[in-house]
Amino acid sequence: MLGLKTATDPSWIHQVELHLEEVLLDHAHCEKKAARTALNLICAYDDRGDPLCRELEQIVVEELEHFRLVLELLARRGIVYRRLKPSSYGKKLGELIRSREPERALDRLLVAGLIEGRSCERFAILKESLADAELADFYASLFESEAGHHAIYLQLAHGFVPAAEVAARFDWLAEKEAEIISRGEPLTRIHS
Amino acid sequence: MLGLKTATDPSWIHQVELHLEEVLLDHAHCEKKAARTALNLICAYDDRGDPLCRELEQIVVEELEHFRLVLELLARRGIVYRRLKPSSYGKKLGELIRSREPERALDRLLVAGLIEGRSCERFAILKESLADAELADFYASLFESEAGHHAIYLQLAHGFVPAAEVAARFDWLAEKEAEIISRGEPLTRIHS
Repeated sequence: MLGLKTATDPSWIHQVELHLEEVLLDHAHCEKKAARTALNLICAYDDRGDPLCRELEQIVVEELEHFRLVLELLARRGIVYRRLKPSSYGKKLGELIRSREPERALDRLLVAGLIEGRSCERFAILKESLADAELADFYASLFESEAGHHAIYLQLAHGFVPAAEVAARFDWLAEKEAEIISRGEPLTRIHS
Repeated sequence: MLGLKTATDPSWIHQVELHLEEVLLDHAHCEKKAARTALNLICAYDDRGDPLCRELEQIVVEELEHFRLVLELLARRGIVYRRLKPSSYGKKLGELIRSREPERALDRLLVAGLIEGRSCERFAILKESLADAELADFYASLFESEAGHHAIYLQLAHGFVPAAEVAARFDWLAEKEAEIISRGEPLTRIHS
Protein backbone atom coordinates (compact mmCIF):
# COMPACT_ATOMS: atom_id res chain seq x y z
CA MET A 1 0.00 0.00 0.00
CA LEU A 2 2.81 2.40 0.85
CA GLY A 3 4.94 1.44 -2.13
CA LEU A 4 8.02 0.77 0.00
CA LYS A 5 10.55 -1.54 -1.61
CA THR A 6 11.98 -2.98 1.58
CA ALA A 7 10.66 -3.80 5.04
CA THR A 8 12.41 -2.49 8.12
CA ASP A 9 15.13 -4.77 9.46
CA PRO A 10 14.01 -6.52 12.69
CA SER A 11 17.12 -5.16 14.45
CA TRP A 12 15.69 -1.62 14.28
CA ILE A 13 13.09 -2.13 17.00
CA HIS A 14 15.74 -3.54 19.35
CA GLN A 15 17.85 -0.44 18.78
CA VAL A 16 14.78 1.69 19.49
CA GLU A 17 14.17 -0.04 22.82
CA LEU A 18 17.78 0.73 23.76
CA HIS A 19 17.58 4.41 22.69
CA LEU A 20 13.97 5.22 23.36
CA GLU A 21 14.51 8.75 24.63
CA GLU A 22 16.49 9.75 21.54
CA VAL A 23 13.90 8.22 19.23
CA LEU A 24 11.07 10.10 20.92
CA LEU A 25 13.03 13.35 20.63
CA ASP A 26 13.78 12.59 17.00
CA HIS A 27 10.11 11.95 16.42
CA ALA A 28 9.25 15.46 17.68
CA HIS A 29 11.80 16.95 15.28
CA CYS A 30 10.39 14.85 12.42
CA GLU A 31 6.87 16.19 12.97
CA LYS A 32 8.15 19.76 12.98
CA LYS A 33 10.13 19.15 9.78
CA ALA A 34 7.10 17.52 8.17
CA ALA A 35 5.06 20.66 8.89
CA ARG A 36 7.79 22.77 7.33
CA THR A 37 7.99 20.55 4.24
CA ALA A 38 4.25 20.93 3.61
CA LEU A 39 4.34 24.70 4.16
CA ASN A 40 7.36 25.08 1.88
CA LEU A 41 5.40 23.21 -0.80
CA ILE A 42 2.47 25.61 -0.37
CA CYS A 43 4.84 28.55 -0.78
CA ALA A 44 6.42 27.02 -3.89
CA TYR A 45 3.30 25.82 -5.69
CA ASP A 46 0.33 27.80 -4.36
CA ASP A 47 -0.28 29.24 -7.82
CA ARG A 48 -1.76 25.79 -8.53
CA GLY A 49 -4.62 26.70 -6.18
CA ASP A 50 -6.78 23.94 -4.76
CA PRO A 51 -6.76 21.07 -4.05
CA LEU A 52 -2.99 21.48 -3.53
CA CYS A 53 -3.25 24.40 -1.10
CA ARG A 54 -6.11 22.91 0.88
CA GLU A 55 -4.54 19.46 1.21
CA LEU A 56 -1.14 20.82 2.22
CA GLU A 57 -2.67 23.25 4.73
CA GLN A 58 -4.34 20.27 6.37
CA ILE A 59 -1.02 18.43 6.52
CA VAL A 60 0.71 21.43 8.14
CA VAL A 61 -1.98 21.62 10.80
CA GLU A 62 -1.93 17.87 11.50
CA GLU A 63 1.87 17.71 11.71
CA LEU A 64 1.87 20.60 14.18
CA GLU A 65 -0.77 18.78 16.23
CA HIS A 66 1.47 15.70 16.26
CA PHE A 67 4.47 17.83 17.21
CA ARG A 68 2.41 19.12 20.16
CA LEU A 69 1.42 15.56 21.16
CA VAL A 70 5.04 14.42 21.14
CA LEU A 71 6.12 17.46 23.18
CA GLU A 72 3.43 16.60 25.74
CA LEU A 73 4.55 12.97 25.81
CA LEU A 74 8.15 14.06 26.38
CA ALA A 75 7.03 16.38 29.19
CA ARG A 76 5.03 13.60 30.89
CA ARG A 77 8.15 11.45 30.84
CA GLY A 78 10.45 14.17 32.14
CA ILE A 79 12.45 14.20 28.90
CA VAL A 80 13.80 17.69 28.24
CA TYR A 81 13.23 18.69 24.61
CA ARG A 82 16.52 19.46 22.94
CA ARG A 83 18.36 19.57 19.63
CA LEU A 84 19.45 16.22 18.25
CA LYS A 85 21.66 15.22 15.36
CA PRO A 86 19.22 13.96 12.72
CA SER A 87 19.62 10.78 10.71
CA SER A 88 21.03 11.35 7.23
CA TYR A 89 17.88 9.87 5.66
CA GLY A 90 16.07 13.12 4.81
CA LYS A 91 19.21 14.79 3.49
CA LYS A 92 20.04 11.80 1.26
CA LEU A 93 16.53 11.72 -0.16
CA GLY A 94 16.64 15.49 -0.67
CA GLU A 95 19.74 15.07 -2.84
CA LEU A 96 17.64 13.07 -5.32
CA ILE A 97 15.32 16.02 -6.01
CA ARG A 98 15.92 17.48 -9.47
CA SER A 99 16.24 21.23 -9.90
CA ARG A 100 14.11 21.92 -12.99
CA GLU A 101 10.34 22.23 -12.92
CA PRO A 102 8.04 20.36 -13.11
CA GLU A 103 10.44 17.52 -12.21
CA ARG A 104 11.33 19.37 -9.02
CA ALA A 105 7.71 19.52 -7.86
CA LEU A 106 7.24 15.86 -8.72
CA ASP A 107 10.33 14.81 -6.78
CA ARG A 108 9.55 16.99 -3.76
CA LEU A 109 6.06 15.53 -3.50
CA LEU A 110 7.21 11.94 -4.03
CA VAL A 111 10.05 12.23 -1.54
CA ALA A 112 7.63 13.71 1.01
CA GLY A 113 5.26 10.83 0.27
CA LEU A 114 8.01 8.24 0.70
CA ILE A 115 9.05 9.72 4.04
CA GLU A 116 5.42 9.61 5.22
CA GLY A 117 5.18 6.03 3.97
CA ARG A 118 8.31 4.96 5.84
CA SER A 119 7.12 6.78 8.98
CA CYS A 120 3.83 4.92 8.71
CA GLU A 121 5.63 1.57 8.42
CA ARG A 122 7.83 2.41 11.40
CA PHE A 123 4.89 3.61 13.52
CA ALA A 124 3.12 0.32 12.76
CA ILE A 125 6.17 -1.57 14.08
CA LEU A 126 6.28 0.65 17.17
CA LYS A 127 2.60 0.11 17.91
CA GLU A 128 2.97 -3.66 17.62
CA SER A 129 6.34 -4.15 19.26
CA LEU A 130 6.88 -1.62 22.03
CA ALA A 131 6.56 -3.11 25.49
CA ASP A 132 5.48 0.29 26.83
CA ALA A 133 1.65 0.31 26.44
CA GLU A 134 1.29 4.12 26.44
CA LEU A 135 3.80 4.40 23.62
CA ALA A 136 2.26 1.53 21.65
CA ASP A 137 -1.12 3.28 21.88
CA PHE A 138 0.44 6.57 20.93
CA TYR A 139 1.89 5.17 17.72
CA ALA A 140 -1.36 3.34 16.98
CA SER A 141 -3.09 6.74 17.10
CA LEU A 142 -0.63 8.33 14.66
CA PHE A 143 0.08 5.79 11.98
CA GLU A 144 -3.13 6.17 9.97
CA SER A 145 -2.51 9.87 9.59
CA GLU A 146 0.92 9.17 8.07
CA ALA A 147 -0.68 6.79 5.56
CA GLY A 148 -3.16 9.52 4.66
CA HIS A 149 -0.37 12.05 4.07
CA HIS A 150 1.50 9.52 1.94
CA ALA A 151 -1.58 9.12 -0.28
CA ILE A 152 -2.13 12.90 -0.54
CA TYR A 153 1.45 13.59 -1.66
CA LEU A 154 1.20 10.93 -4.36
CA GLN A 155 -2.15 12.25 -5.50
CA LEU A 156 -0.83 15.84 -5.69
CA ALA A 157 2.10 14.68 -7.83
CA HIS A 158 -0.43 13.84 -10.55
CA GLY A 159 -1.17 17.55 -10.87
CA PHE A 160 2.31 18.14 -12.31
CA VAL A 161 3.13 15.33 -14.76
CA PRO A 162 1.27 12.45 -16.45
CA ALA A 163 0.40 9.41 -14.35
CA ALA A 164 2.95 7.15 -16.09
CA GLU A 165 5.73 9.57 -15.20
CA VAL A 166 4.57 9.72 -11.57
CA ALA A 167 4.55 5.93 -11.38
CA ALA A 168 7.98 5.52 -12.99
CA ARG A 169 9.62 8.18 -10.84
CA PHE A 170 7.98 6.88 -7.67
CA ASP A 171 9.29 3.43 -8.46
CA TRP A 172 12.82 4.77 -8.97
CA LEU A 173 12.74 6.91 -5.83
CA ALA A 174 11.30 4.05 -3.78
CA GLU A 175 14.26 1.88 -4.86
CA LYS A 176 16.66 4.60 -3.73
CA GLU A 177 14.76 5.02 -0.45
CA ALA A 178 15.06 1.28 0.16
CA GLU A 179 18.82 1.44 -0.45
CA ILE A 180 19.23 4.40 1.90
CA ILE A 181 17.18 2.90 4.72
CA SER A 182 18.82 -0.54 4.32
CA ARG A 183 22.30 0.92 4.61
CA GLY A 184 21.48 1.90 8.21
CA GLU A 185 23.51 4.32 10.29
CA PRO A 186 25.10 4.61 13.70
CA LEU A 187 22.40 6.85 15.23
CA THR A 188 19.09 5.29 16.23
CA ARG A 189 16.32 7.42 14.80
CA ILE A 190 12.78 7.11 13.39
CA HIS A 191 14.42 6.84 9.96
CA SER A 192 17.67 5.02 10.80
CA MET B 1 -1.00 50.10 21.41
CA LEU B 2 0.86 48.72 18.39
CA GLY B 3 3.97 50.82 18.96
CA LEU B 4 3.99 52.14 15.40
CA LYS B 5 5.85 55.44 14.96
CA THR B 6 3.85 56.73 12.03
CA ALA B 7 0.27 56.49 10.85
CA THR B 8 -0.52 55.38 7.32
CA ASP B 9 -0.70 58.22 4.81
CA PRO B 10 -4.31 58.92 3.75
CA SER B 11 -3.31 58.46 0.10
CA TRP B 12 -2.80 54.71 0.69
CA ILE B 13 -6.50 53.86 0.89
CA HIS B 14 -7.14 55.69 -2.39
CA GLN B 15 -4.43 53.65 -4.04
CA VAL B 16 -6.01 50.50 -2.61
CA GLU B 17 -9.42 51.37 -4.09
CA LEU B 18 -7.70 51.74 -7.48
CA HIS B 19 -5.78 48.44 -7.21
CA LEU B 20 -8.10 46.34 -5.11
CA GLU B 21 -7.50 43.05 -6.92
CA GLU B 22 -3.75 43.31 -6.48
CA VAL B 23 -4.10 44.22 -2.82
CA LEU B 24 -6.34 41.22 -2.15
CA LEU B 25 -3.86 38.93 -3.90
CA ASP B 26 -1.02 40.49 -1.94
CA HIS B 27 -2.98 39.89 1.25
CA ALA B 28 -3.19 36.16 0.48
CA HIS B 29 0.57 36.05 -0.03
CA CYS B 30 1.11 37.96 3.22
CA GLU B 31 -0.89 35.43 5.23
CA LYS B 32 1.09 32.56 3.72
CA LYS B 33 4.38 34.31 4.47
CA ALA B 34 3.23 35.02 8.02
CA ALA B 35 2.58 31.31 8.55
CA ARG B 36 6.05 30.54 7.25
CA THR B 37 7.67 33.17 9.49
CA ALA B 38 6.07 31.63 12.58
CA LEU B 39 7.02 28.07 11.57
CA ASN B 40 10.60 29.12 10.80
CA LEU B 41 10.76 30.62 14.30
CA ILE B 42 9.55 27.32 15.79
CA CYS B 43 12.27 25.48 13.86
CA ALA B 44 14.94 27.93 15.00
CA TYR B 45 14.01 28.25 18.67
CA ASP B 46 11.98 25.20 19.65
CA ASP B 47 14.64 24.20 22.15
CA ARG B 48 13.10 26.99 24.26
CA GLY B 49 10.02 24.79 24.63
CA ASP B 50 6.76 26.38 25.73
CA PRO B 51 5.25 28.94 25.71
CA LEU B 52 7.23 29.77 22.53
CA CYS B 53 6.31 26.58 20.65
CA ARG B 54 2.68 26.66 21.68
CA GLU B 55 2.16 30.35 20.85
CA LEU B 56 3.89 30.09 17.48
CA GLU B 57 2.00 26.90 16.56
CA GLN B 58 -1.21 28.83 17.16
CA ILE B 59 -0.01 31.66 14.92
CA VAL B 60 0.86 29.22 12.10
CA VAL B 61 -2.61 27.69 12.27
CA GLU B 62 -4.38 31.08 12.37
CA GLU B 63 -2.37 32.49 9.49
CA LEU B 64 -3.18 29.42 7.40
CA GLU B 65 -6.86 29.88 8.26
CA HIS B 66 -6.64 33.49 7.08
CA PHE B 67 -4.83 32.40 3.92
CA ARG B 68 -7.75 30.03 3.28
CA LEU B 69 -10.29 32.82 3.91
CA VAL B 70 -8.55 35.13 1.44
CA LEU B 71 -8.36 32.36 -1.18
CA GLU B 72 -12.11 31.82 -0.77
CA LEU B 73 -12.76 35.54 -1.07
CA LEU B 74 -10.69 35.68 -4.26
CA ALA B 75 -12.60 32.70 -5.68
CA ARG B 76 -15.97 34.32 -4.88
CA ARG B 77 -14.86 37.39 -6.80
CA GLY B 78 -13.52 35.45 -9.76
CA ILE B 79 -9.96 36.63 -9.11
CA VAL B 80 -7.47 33.98 -10.19
CA TYR B 81 -4.82 33.44 -7.54
CA ARG B 82 -1.39 34.11 -8.96
CA ARG B 83 2.15 35.18 -8.15
CA LEU B 84 2.64 38.88 -7.49
CA LYS B 85 5.71 41.02 -7.04
CA PRO B 86 5.77 41.76 -3.30
CA SER B 87 6.39 45.16 -1.77
CA SER B 88 9.95 45.68 -0.58
CA TYR B 89 8.75 46.21 3.00
CA GLY B 90 9.44 42.73 4.37
CA LYS B 91 12.82 42.48 2.69
CA LYS B 92 13.92 45.87 4.02
CA LEU B 93 12.87 44.97 7.54
CA GLY B 94 14.61 41.61 7.20
CA GLU B 95 17.87 43.39 6.43
CA LEU B 96 17.77 44.91 9.93
CA ILE B 97 17.93 41.51 11.63
CA ARG B 98 21.30 40.91 13.23
CA SER B 99 23.10 37.62 12.70
CA ARG B 100 24.35 36.75 16.20
CA GLU B 101 22.20 35.16 18.86
CA PRO B 102 20.33 36.11 20.98
CA GLU B 103 20.11 39.42 19.06
CA ARG B 104 18.93 37.52 16.01
CA ALA B 105 16.02 35.95 17.87
CA LEU B 106 15.10 39.32 19.37
CA ASP B 107 15.15 41.03 15.97
CA ARG B 108 13.23 38.28 14.21
CA LEU B 109 10.47 38.38 16.81
CA LEU B 110 10.29 42.18 16.89
CA VAL B 111 10.25 42.49 13.11
CA ALA B 112 7.48 39.88 12.97
CA GLY B 113 5.63 41.85 15.66
CA LEU B 114 6.02 45.12 13.76
CA ILE B 115 4.70 43.58 10.55
CA GLU B 116 1.68 42.24 12.44
CA GLY B 117 1.22 45.68 14.02
CA ARG B 118 1.31 47.44 10.66
CA SER B 119 -1.06 44.84 9.17
CA CYS B 120 -3.43 45.48 12.05
CA GLU B 121 -3.32 49.25 11.45
CA ARG B 122 -3.92 48.73 7.74
CA PHE B 123 -6.79 46.28 8.30
CA ALA B 124 -8.40 48.84 10.60
CA ILE B 125 -8.23 51.42 7.80
CA LEU B 126 -9.66 48.91 5.32
CA LYS B 127 -12.56 48.03 7.61
CA GLU B 128 -13.43 51.69 8.12
CA SER B 129 -12.81 53.05 4.65
CA LEU B 130 -13.66 50.46 2.03
CA ALA B 131 -16.91 51.17 0.22
CA ASP B 132 -17.35 47.43 -0.42
CA ALA B 133 -19.30 46.16 2.61
CA GLU B 134 -18.20 42.51 2.29
CA LEU B 135 -14.56 43.56 2.29
CA ALA B 136 -15.02 46.00 5.16
CA ASP B 137 -16.57 43.19 7.22
CA PHE B 138 -13.80 40.83 6.18
CA TYR B 139 -11.09 43.15 7.47
CA ALA B 140 -13.09 43.84 10.62
CA SER B 141 -13.01 40.08 11.27
CA LEU B 142 -9.24 39.83 10.85
CA PHE B 143 -7.73 42.86 12.50
CA GLU B 144 -8.02 41.71 16.12
CA SER B 145 -6.09 38.58 15.32
CA GLU B 146 -3.21 40.65 13.93
CA ALA B 147 -3.14 42.70 17.14
CA GLY B 148 -2.99 39.46 19.12
CA HIS B 149 -0.04 38.18 17.07
CA HIS B 150 1.75 41.50 17.51
CA ALA B 151 1.42 41.16 21.29
CA ILE B 152 2.58 37.52 21.27
CA TYR B 153 5.75 38.29 19.30
CA LEU B 154 6.66 41.11 21.68
CA GLN B 155 6.00 38.91 24.69
CA LEU B 156 8.13 36.08 23.27
CA ALA B 157 11.02 38.50 22.72
CA HIS B 158 11.25 38.85 26.51
CA GLY B 159 12.33 35.21 26.68
CA PHE B 160 15.62 36.08 25.00
CA VAL B 161 16.91 39.36 26.45
CA PRO B 162 16.08 41.66 29.38
CA ALA B 163 12.99 43.85 29.12
CA ALA B 164 14.97 47.08 28.75
CA GLU B 165 16.79 45.65 25.74
CA VAL B 166 13.51 44.53 24.17
CA ALA B 167 12.05 48.00 24.64
CA ALA B 168 15.11 49.82 23.27
CA ARG B 169 15.40 47.59 20.23
CA PHE B 170 11.68 47.70 19.53
CA ASP B 171 11.84 51.49 19.64
CA TRP B 172 14.75 51.54 17.20
CA LEU B 173 13.15 49.02 14.81
CA ALA B 174 9.81 50.86 14.98
CA GLU B 175 11.58 54.06 13.86
CA LYS B 176 13.10 52.18 10.94
CA GLU B 177 9.74 50.62 10.08
CA ALA B 178 8.18 54.08 10.05
CA GLU B 179 10.89 55.32 7.68
CA ILE B 180 10.43 52.34 5.35
CA ILE B 181 6.63 52.58 5.21
CA SER B 182 6.70 56.39 4.83
CA ARG B 183 9.03 56.20 1.85
CA GLY B 184 6.26 54.44 -0.09
CA GLU B 185 6.76 52.55 -3.33
CA PRO B 186 5.29 52.28 -6.80
CA LEU B 187 3.34 49.04 -6.18
CA THR B 188 0.15 49.18 -4.17
CA ARG B 189 0.30 46.49 -1.52
CA ILE B 190 -0.86 45.79 2.05
CA HIS B 191 2.53 47.14 3.18
CA SER B 192 3.19 49.82 0.52
